[in-house]
Amino acid sequence: MEPFRIHILGCGSALPTLKHYATSQIVELREKLFMIDCGEGTQIQLRRSKIRFTKLGAIFISHLHGDHCFGLIGLISTFGLLGRTAALHVYAPKELEGMLHAQIELFCHGLEFEVVFHAVDTTRTAVVYEDRSLTVETIPLQHRIPRCGYLFREKPTLPHIRSDMIDFYRIPVSQINNIKSGADWTTDEGEFIPNVRLVSPPDRPRSYAYCSDTRYIPTLHRLVEGADCLYHEATYTHDLLSRARLYYHSTARQAATVARDAHVSKLLLGHYSARYDDEQTLLLEARSVFPPSFLSYEGAIFDV
Amino acid sequence: MEPFRIHILGCGSALPTLKHYATSQIVELREKLFMIDCGEGTQIQLRRSKIRFTKLGAIFISHLHGDHCFGLIGLISTFGLLGRTAALHVYAPKELEGMLHAQIELFCHGLEFEVVFHAVDTTRTAVVYEDRSLTVETIPLQHRIPRCGYLFREKPTLPHIRSDMIDFYRIPVSQINNIKSGADWTTDEGEFIPNVRLVSPPDRPRSYAYCSDTRYIPTLHRLVEGADCLYHEATYTHDLLSRARLYYHSTARQAATVARDAHVSKLLLGHYSARYDDEQTLLLEARSVFPPSFLSYEGAIFDV
Repeated sequence: MEPFRIHILGCGSALPTLKHYATSQIVELREKLFMIDCGEGTQIQLRRSKIRFTKLGAIFISHLHGDHCFGLIGLISTFGLLGRTAALHVYAPKELEGMLHAQIELFCHGLEFEVVFHAVDTTRTAVVYEDRSLTVETIPLQHRIPRCGYLFREKPTLPHIRSDMIDFYRIPVSQINNIKSGADWTTDEGEFIPNVRLVSPPDRPRSYAYCSDTRYIPTLHRLVEGADCLYHEATYTHDLLSRARLYYHSTARQAATVARDAHVSKLLLGHYSARYDDEQTLLLEARSVFPPSFLSYEGAIFDV
Repeated sequence: MEPFRIHILGCGSALPTLKHYATSQIVELREKLFMIDCGEGTQIQLRRSKIRFTKLGAIFISHLHGDHCFGLIGLISTFGLLGRTAALHVYAPKELEGMLHAQIELFCHGLEFEVVFHAVDTTRTAVVYEDRSLTVETIPLQHRIPRCGYLFREKPTLPHIRSDMIDFYRIPVSQINNIKSGADWTTDEGEFIPNVRLVSPPDRPRSYAYCSDTRYIPTLHRLVEGADCLYHEATYTHDLLSRARLYYHSTARQAATVARDAHVSKLLLGHYSARYDDEQTLLLEARSVFPPSFLSYEGAIFDV
């Protein structure tokens, strides 16, 4: 199966700590890289991760709090210094557009690649990105300012060739793509071989949902139903529920409730408040509701 | 003697590496803290340093390349989250003013402290900051965009009280400040004690000069003559002199030449190109011209 992985570059919250960087992650799917959020220090973490960042084509920003976007101009500036020429696409709430272009004009003289801004409507679900491999949809969330999550859905792949059958019927390589696309085969002796005997079923398309920052939304599970992997912020433990409500954040238990109700395969927790020295408390709380919960941490790589 | 120290938060150059953060340092003098430059990640390094950053009153920006100023908005934002109310003064080339205020407006809703911008004229020497303890002067430099260094000069201090003499003549505590300021003393028996017998000479005022980024300026030594400590960028080794000239940077040998000609007490090297795995080469080159040369590194603290 083609790799579909999440690389955690940072999973802290607004206040930096010695343990966590501000939010950023890389979604890797079939040789392509996408970034979600880009807090201060993201380019440092990207370098540390040894990810080949020339392959990064698009960045999706959830909202305009600094811990989710202050690293963007530094990343763009460094890409410029490194001689990037390929366009970089930025998807974000519209308020960022003017600021980003002003920053590029002031700080990145002679940038040799284009930064293409795409304003996303954070109030509704819509496909904002599409290529041959996947679509990316917005997920409306609830926070103090306009914000949305992103749902990465792999597109259906072609079936797998059964190489034993290809060998058996001596089918030439030139026919492989046709057969993958559904063609039957007739041997030199005139024997008809239906497509179903030449292929095995394709892998089930996978999906990854990113939801941060947001308060608990009881209906959110409908939007991320069946995702293979859900990242949901878990800023606080449930004893701080009133604080979570006040600041439009979620507790670990609430994150796990969304995961359970959405029947996802696994939950990644993140955006931990700086008050927790040990996030095991958050993990145990989430697992009491949804056992396949995991803690994000800097440098972690999760298969979707 | 009161502490006068330089804390190195970052001393890398434009491209981030796993070894060096972008440029920033803290000047500590008599319980006050000043920052020079504020590259991306400065707030992370500040936290790592355990410096009590509520004491930071002013930030001096040398020029508007990202590796010297991209950390500013993150620092301001975090100060806001931590409940700072004291004004923060930013001294920088004038082009930053509009950008900084636009960033604060977009990203720092309800900031409860004032960010006071002071445009510095980078083309001439002038005192831009003064308080009871020190003055800060601009040092015109030569780089691809407007830029200046900063010279921190301690003000003369009062002489030291000779406590043995104070005890001997039973001079009351209430008189100490007068005597520090030059007053003589007459004992109850009418004996006249001249001030010179009651005090020892004050410490010599110290000074610290920061020069980065700049190409080699043969006359720069006149502006930093006799500084106790000079920080001068040393981006390259001297075999890359033509590259240094092209990009308006200096070699280690050139930095050492300025230090030698200015008769400073010690030289701190920094702003190393990412190409050097081991900066000992830069250090040896500098020491061949000016032996009291030292390498800056993250976490280092130098007494001026």
